[in-house]
Amino acid sequence: MSDAPPIDFYFDFSSPYGYFAAQRIDDLARLYGRAVIWHPILLGVVFKTTGQVPLLGVPLKGDYARRDLARVARLMGVPFITPATFPFGAVAASRITLWLRGRDPALAARYARAVYARAFAEGGDVVPAVAAAEIAGSLGVGREEALAANNDPAVKDLLRQENEAAMAAGVFGSPFVIVDGEPFWGWDRLDMVERWLSSGGW
Amino acid sequence: MSDAPPIDFYFDFSSPYGYFAAQRIDDLARLYGRAVIWHPILLGVVFKTTGQVPLLGVPLKGDYARRDLARVARLMGVPFITPATFPFGAVAASRITLWLRGRDPALAARYARAVYARAFAEGGDVVPAVAAAEIAGSLGVGREEALAANNDPAVKDLLRQENEAAMAAGVFGSPFVIVDGEPFWGWDRLDMVERWLSSGGW
Repeated sequence: MSDAPPIDFYFDFSSPYGYFAAQRIDDLARLYGRAVIWHPILLGVVFKTTGQVPLLGVPLKGDYARRDLARVARLMGVPFITPATFPFGAVAASRITLWLRGRDPALAARYARAVYARAFAEGGDVVPAVAAAEIAGSLGVGREEALAANNDPAVKDLLRQENEAAMAAGVFGSPFVIVDGEPFWGWDRLDMVERWLSSGGW
Repeated sequence: MSDAPPIDFYFDFSSPYGYFAAQRIDDLARLYGRAVIWHPILLGVVFKTTGQVPLLGVPLKGDYARRDLARVARLMGVPFITPATFPFGAVAASRITLWLRGRDPALAARYARAVYARAFAEGGDVVPAVAAAEIAGSLGVGREEALAANNDPAVKDLLRQENEAAMAAGVFGSPFVIVDGEPFWGWDRLDMVERWLSSGGW
């Protein structure tokens, strides 16, 4: 890695486009000598501020999104299933990501990708704390330790602060990338993120 | 043009991303031997069905959009001004576009691009019927004829039908492109439209 500042990658675990972006963001950043800070956020909290509603609940737009998600998955060559309960609020997985990030940022990113895979590649339920801890366990992290982190008031505070800091930075959706102060919303803007990284902006 | 079916291009004159897409859609289609049918729609009517609100009115998202519009304009090398009254309902210009389309589809497209340019390149007010007719006049169409078309009940009906048909086809935003039954929403999906046209889908 060079001394160039890291990229901020904001995502909600319940966001299918966040799942798609999570497959690419680290590789994309690495091409330009950048690290990625993974920021789990809870869009349910953000939407209370912005008045937005979950994508799939909007008439017409929801139908379009279902079709588009399957199309994007085919294009990227990644599996995609809409989980039975959707959208969902993955509070425990978000807390565990932040707790891991404080110890080992690369492990936190691996954990986040594993949570996304459980949800959108396998259609699994990642909401219960035991499910979130079990995924940590599959990466060699102590399950009990992960469960304890989920209940730790300091970690709970971390997630609240993360959400507030995200909104203060202008984040209103998932995925959301900030490069040197420049915001990009949506999976379909990753090519523009790459163009910005390669050119230094325009 | 080959015998391949035309592309449907839906746009609201008040949509800045529609303005950007209007600069590219005909050239893009021509590359693949396709014609373009220009469909003016009124998102104000569509939003009553979907419950959406105008982009720039959403907290955080509106600020992002303002920044993004300037950035996209710089990237495309086209002028961009947010008109003083925005968003706006360009009923007369939409009717005149449909009236022209019935006589000369290429002229209708030229007219639509001229309306967009007046609004977003010059910041002009395209809402009054006289303004919409004046733009037609600048393309060699009789102003009085255009004003009469705007007041013609048959043309008014055309616009209502156009809106209803758009919603029936799943259109919920602007710009919106349908290629051989496949829907694409947004300026940022034009590269995907091109990929679909070149590959026949995936």
